[in-house]
Amino acid sequence: MFRFEREALRQRSPTAFSEQHSVRFQDVDAAGIIFYPRLLVYCHDLLVNFLARAGAPLDQVLRERCWIAPIRHAAADYFRPLRFGDAFEVGIVRAHLEPTEVTLGFRFARTEGGEVCAVAQSVHTFLNPESFTRIEVPEPPRTAFEAIGE
Amino acid sequence: MFRFEREALRQRSPTAFSEQHSVRFQDVDAAGIIFYPRLLVYCHDLLVNFLARAGAPLDQVLRERCWIAPIRHAAADYFRPLRFGDAFEVGIVRAHLEPTEVTLGFRFARTEGGEVCAVAQSVHTFLNPESFTRIEVPEPPRTAFEAIGE
Amino acid sequence: MFRFEREALRQRSPTAFSEQHSVRFQDVDAAGIIFYPRLLVYCHDLLVNFLARAGAPLDQVLRERCWIAPIRHAAADYFRPLRFGDAFEVGIVRAHLEPTEVTLGFRFARTEGGEVCAVAQSVHTFLNPESFTRIEVPEPPRTAFEAIGE
Amino acid sequence: MFRFEREALRQRSPTAFSEQHSVRFQDVDAAGIIFYPRLLVYCHDLLVNFLARAGAPLDQVLRERCWIAPIRHAAADYFRPLRFGDAFEVGIVRAHLEPTEVTLGFRFARTEGGEVCAVAQSVHTFLNPESFTRIEVPEPPRTAFEAIGE
Repeated sequence: MFRFEREALRQRSPTAFSEQHSVRFQDVDAAGIIFYPRLLVYCHDLLVNFLARAGAPLDQVLRERCWIAPIRHAAADYFRPLRFGDAFEVGIVRAHLEPTEVTLGFRFARTEGGEVCAVAQSVHTFLNPESFTRIEVPEPPRTAFEAIGE
Repeated sequence: MFRFEREALRQRSPTAFSEQHSVRFQDVDAAGIIFYPRLLVYCHDLLVNFLARAGAPLDQVLRERCWIAPIRHAAADYFRPLRFGDAFEVGIVRAHLEPTEVTLGFRFARTEGGEVCAVAQSVHTFLNPESFTRIEVPEPPRTAFEAIGE
Repeated sequence: MFRFEREALRQRSPTAFSEQHSVRFQDVDAAGIIFYPRLLVYCHDLLVNFLARAGAPLDQVLRERCWIAPIRHAAADYFRPLRFGDAFEVGIVRAHLEPTEVTLGFRFARTEGGEVCAVAQSVHTFLNPESFTRIEVPEPPRTAFEAIGE
Repeated sequence: MFRFEREALRQRSPTAFSEQHSVRFQDVDAAGIIFYPRLLVYCHDLLVNFLARAGAPLDQVLRERCWIAPIRHAAADYFRPLRFGDAFEVGIVRAHLEPTEVTLGFRFARTEGGEVCAVAQSVHTFLNPESFTRIEVPEPPRTAFEAIGE
């Protein structure tokens, strides 16, 4: 299973797919910091939007039983705290393709100043939804992941 | 559609079905108070546990396509703030049955001292999961709701 | 405490403040429908964005201890189910001002076709954050609420 | 930064601190599987309960500004899907102490049959809440972590 080095995810590649957000009122915990699993929620929301733009809207993919891509591994490193209202960019900054799986690298940086606050990664295996056997990473996601680059 | 008077939900009936909880680290928002939709989440979790104890575990009900009970209305009144770590009791304190729907009344009270912090209610309509037509409130939930009392 | 009639919230006023969303992958529950408290989360996220655009970003308001506006009452009516991927508009469609509180009316409608799927409302009381006594609805929110109209 | 080998977390040590849960109605996503960040939420809820039982209730720790323990790293490996209603045990099965930080290992196993569905880990650094400088892992957590064992 391929995993990125934490440091490799600190750089924003020019081919990254990214969105701007602000930390929500209810994203923070009793210590006033974004609750750590919520960063992975932002990663998954971004992936869903990425797939839709790539021509593979996940709701349609599930309905037509084209493929499923369950997660095998997820990880995150937290460098700097994000608080309510902080504006940040979350991006898919790297993608590593194996025949039947993909490792995606994510990066959270302050909109103002660009300080990297966290990085994350997730490994997804592509399966036939009927047989649950591995399948090759399908199109159009494959080409879209390749365009992100490694 | 039957709705309880807010004041009618402040009392804890001896037949209430209740659980003890503490406000979670991530239940609070940036103002340090439990984020208001989360109280409705506690209500629904309680309802699922109530149905399981009544002999109608919702996972099995969904799998066997016995019935569905989508929500038509939900409401909550907030009297006193709950903060991280505050111990509270949430209970189903009233249930009003109509032929094809039920209105459930919920009550949140501090474990220590019993101060009522919030009340809530939800109205659920029972449907045939194939035809989406109304059906009579089925057993065993009907008897369990009757036992809560009005 | 002022509450809107459910039917009064079905219409989209030309002065509504609204946003477009799609139901997220994790918004749905085991029945495949958006989990009902999540609609109130969308309402609150919208209110935060509304306040920011009105010149009262809530993170700054909290930091500078200008005012707080805890919720007294929330309610929602659910007409039609929303599922993963469904595109919808959520809008603040009405605002009723009392001297020290505001009742906000929300409306969820399918982006395509405009079918109203749910309406909601929330009542917020404005308080001095030090003394917890009621204060008049402050500016700039007051003018922004007036612009929504009743 | 110390991290456990994934395989080292598959075994349940006799000194583990654990709880029984069922996957909640709203824990699942549109694919019907527990949404992957939610497992980390269960880990954190367990940690809060563990600290309370160890004599360090986190709400009191935060209020008295004793220490904070922000997360530096979190990771999870997913082996088998958990669905709505599935009963599982989540346990803190290992704890590795460094002078100023702790790595905690978590394990999710089906209550019936004991199949391991996921493992996770989190690394927490102990800080003085005023100066944000590292401090030694304080008591009583230190002794409680040592009791979990490595």
